[in-house]
Amino acid sequence: MSVEKRLSELGYSLPVASLPAAMYANVVQTGNLLFVAGKGPRSADGSAPNGKLGAEFDTQAGYNFARLTGFEILAILKVHLGTLDTISRVVKLQGFVNATADFTEHHKVLNGCSELMIEIFGEAGFHARSVLGAVSLRDNLPLVIDSIFEVREP
Amino acid sequence: MSVEKRLSELGYSLPVASLPAAMYANVVQTGNLLFVAGKGPRSADGSAPNGKLGAEFDTQAGYNFARLTGFEILAILKVHLGTLDTISRVVKLQGFVNATADFTEHHKVLNGCSELMIEIFGEAGFHARSVLGAVSLRDNLPLVIDSIFEVREP
Amino acid sequence: MSVEKRLSELGYSLPVASLPAAMYANVVQTGNLLFVAGKGPRSADGSAPNGKLGAEFDTQAGYNFARLTGFEILAILKVHLGTLDTISRVVKLQGFVNATADFTEHHKVLNGCSELMIEIFGEAGFHARSVLGAVSLRDNLPLVIDSIFEVREP
Repeated sequence: MSVEKRLSELGYSLPVASLPAAMYANVVQTGNLLFVAGKGPRSADGSAPNGKLGAEFDTQAGYNFARLTGFEILAILKVHLGTLDTISRVVKLQGFVNATADFTEHHKVLNGCSELMIEIFGEAGFHARSVLGAVSLRDNLPLVIDSIFEVREP
Repeated sequence: MSVEKRLSELGYSLPVASLPAAMYANVVQTGNLLFVAGKGPRSADGSAPNGKLGAEFDTQAGYNFARLTGFEILAILKVHLGTLDTISRVVKLQGFVNATADFTEHHKVLNGCSELMIEIFGEAGFHARSVLGAVSLRDNLPLVIDSIFEVREP
Repeated sequence: MSVEKRLSELGYSLPVASLPAAMYANVVQTGNLLFVAGKGPRSADGSAPNGKLGAEFDTQAGYNFARLTGFEILAILKVHLGTLDTISRVVKLQGFVNATADFTEHHKVLNGCSELMIEIFGEAGFHARSVLGAVSLRDNLPLVIDSIFEVREP
């Protein structure tokens, strides 16, 4: 099934794609692979949350931020590709969680993005992933997710 | 020489491959590349060690954990591929070491995995790599290693 | 325009390429992609600075370190390829900034490398990127940059 149809069936709408925060590109395609810049969550009003997991935020809040970040990633892919229907696989997610030294639920945080990808892409949404605790992140974002996607045509 | 033969000559046996800890895949193949999920060490009894380098663990312990993690990675590759003999190159390792702020021997820790790869794959085992100190990791694992491999046939 | 010509027009000369710090490769090519080992800055006298952003170093110092690291990366690519003119795209930069828990300008630090890539490669220098705060790095380096480049011929 079309990913675009699936998105509208689920009643999801993508946010306005954020611009790169500096001199770089949101997406670089090489062959069939799309390397996507690290993205963080934005709230409905466009503002970015800030704080650490294990301090200002708990795991459930982090899960929600990871899900919001998933929508940010899809938004910039849609701008780049025109349609999400040319994506054949979610290849890799790397989660950088702004965390305290004793936080241990990084994987439960990243699940917010992983489960969104599977909800939207089905089988093709199953990706390899890793996650780590960052001592700090730009603008004190609670998390940043780096990603790689595969498209059908190079 | 066959990697499988080399493994048995060395008297090594692979552990039972661990399952993904959440909704994701252990390995995603795109073209000739295998993107492998971040893996950590398990002890012989299947339990996962936990603690930080520079606190609970010293560099030598970290080296041993990195070597154990290398076997974990090979185990999931073997499940995915059927045989390790189709692997043509170890492309990249990224090591995330659960570390204190004053730890400085991250590279000596990651050597445990790097040297295992070269021992098993020979020339094809020489990989690009990077390593960093994570302020915390899921389940307080002492390290997680992210990896990319190349196979002969897409 | 030739990247090599551009470098000499700008009056830049590359440092002597550093050797891998352990049992690994500086560059691994797979298909059209070059995976480059994580590199840090060296001063003109060949020594490596050490300390954290937000403590020993401020953002401007970090920017300069990221720029120096860009030259280190180009130096090892030149050794690997013979010429930088076969590079068709800077695909990805990942910056690991050795930072305090309250540092928030990681992106401004990484700009030192990003802007160098665009200065040298022009349009082809626009890359996807991400950056995070590492609690510590090998040898207390202030930053390490991981990178992926694309070449014209596989």
